[in-house]
Amino acid sequence: MRAVVLLSGGLDSATVLAIARSEGYDCYCLSIDYGQRHRAELSAAARVAKALGAREHRVLALDLASFGGSALTDRNIAVPVAGIKDGIPVTYVPARNTIMLALALAWAEVLAAQHLFFGANAVDYSGYPDCRPEYLRAFEAMANLATKAAAGGRRLTLHTPIISLAKSDIIRRGVALGVDYALTVSCYQADDDGRACGLCDSCRLRRAGFEAAGVPDPTRYAG
Amino acid sequence: MRAVVLLSGGLDSATVLAIARSEGYDCYCLSIDYGQRHRAELSAAARVAKALGAREHRVLALDLASFGGSALTDRNIAVPVAGIKDGIPVTYVPARNTIMLALALAWAEVLAAQHLFFGANAVDYSGYPDCRPEYLRAFEAMANLATKAAAGGRRLTLHTPIISLAKSDIIRRGVALGVDYALTVSCYQADDDGRACGLCDSCRLRRAGFEAAGVPDPTRYAG
Repeated sequence: MRAVVLLSGGLDSATVLAIARSEGYDCYCLSIDYGQRHRAELSAAARVAKALGAREHRVLALDLASFGGSALTDRNIAVPVAGIKDGIPVTYVPARNTIMLALALAWAEVLAAQHLFFGANAVDYSGYPDCRPEYLRAFEAMANLATKAAAGGRRLTLHTPIISLAKSDIIRRGVALGVDYALTVSCYQADDDGRACGLCDSCRLRRAGFEAAGVPDPTRYAG
Repeated sequence: MRAVVLLSGGLDSATVLAIARSEGYDCYCLSIDYGQRHRAELSAAARVAKALGAREHRVLALDLASFGGSALTDRNIAVPVAGIKDGIPVTYVPARNTIMLALALAWAEVLAAQHLFFGANAVDYSGYPDCRPEYLRAFEAMANLATKAAAGGRRLTLHTPIISLAKSDIIRRGVALGVDYALTVSCYQADDDGRACGLCDSCRLRRAGFEAAGVPDPTRYAG
């Protein structure tokens, strides 16, 4: 069975790819070059796709930076490094998950794949509206009306296998499936060599996750 | 009030822009350069946006041709010219409307716009799954869970003012609002100068629409 897997190059989506592979899916991985600061995650995605036996990996370019509105795409908005706050963080990229899922849906239709895998997580980032289960169910419902495949009765399933896992549980699951997290990049402002800042929300959650999981943190930190 | 208007450069979306303007919206027009054959529609969109007093017009590049699967993006699939058939035509672009609406949603959020205008029509092209009212309602429901704005209680409305109009009624409406259809390009394989083939489904529907409306057809046909 074919599946399209959204692969960012980070810890979460690498784990999701490993889960999809463990369930027997032929995985077509899609990464979106949307103008993110942390472009090192795109080369990480290529390494992860290869290491985990993806059938194919594509990077699609899309200039979301031209819209702005996020610290991840607008160099004039700083990535917060002072610790995780309540509310929706400035690293939220407007409608990003909807766009990425829509692109995955398009590729799935061309491939005649009826499965999408997405590493949304509602535990650590309850702040992101487009990681909430009710949003993901609404996307799936919409997708099942959107396509020629759907109109022909071929149902699409949106899999979010880590939606309710704590970061430490995601890491334990991935380690059990043989994921090499040294290949992944989570930092919002990783340098071009993929070295992490250690200070942004994504770095903090990742580091705390390895600690809680009792797994040595393989992340390369800058400076 | 701000609105994002998806503007293809064709007859339908030009009419939708005129309707949105007539209702008093400040219009931010978005066109997607998705690798379509008929790239002349993109320069048509710029002309239409200007003529109808849009506040801004942007063209976002996105290489859907890399996915293929449509006569509009794959040069190896011919645009049908033998007349309109039953079923979903090969000019259907997988998940295209979902992708375009998702991009419009992103820009709307950055602009703090709560209105999207989209020229879907369910009469002439009942073949396209992503022009059906039930699909559009599902997109709107999803959008209202997707964004920071939605999470903050700012509702988004998806306007589809021509969804149930016949082509001739769309044209009559546009003429009444002062749309100059000579500026628009509908042909699926228009030449670089915007001249229409006169044979594809889109040309056939457009020509029949002008006839039925009793309006002289301003389209420039090639050859």
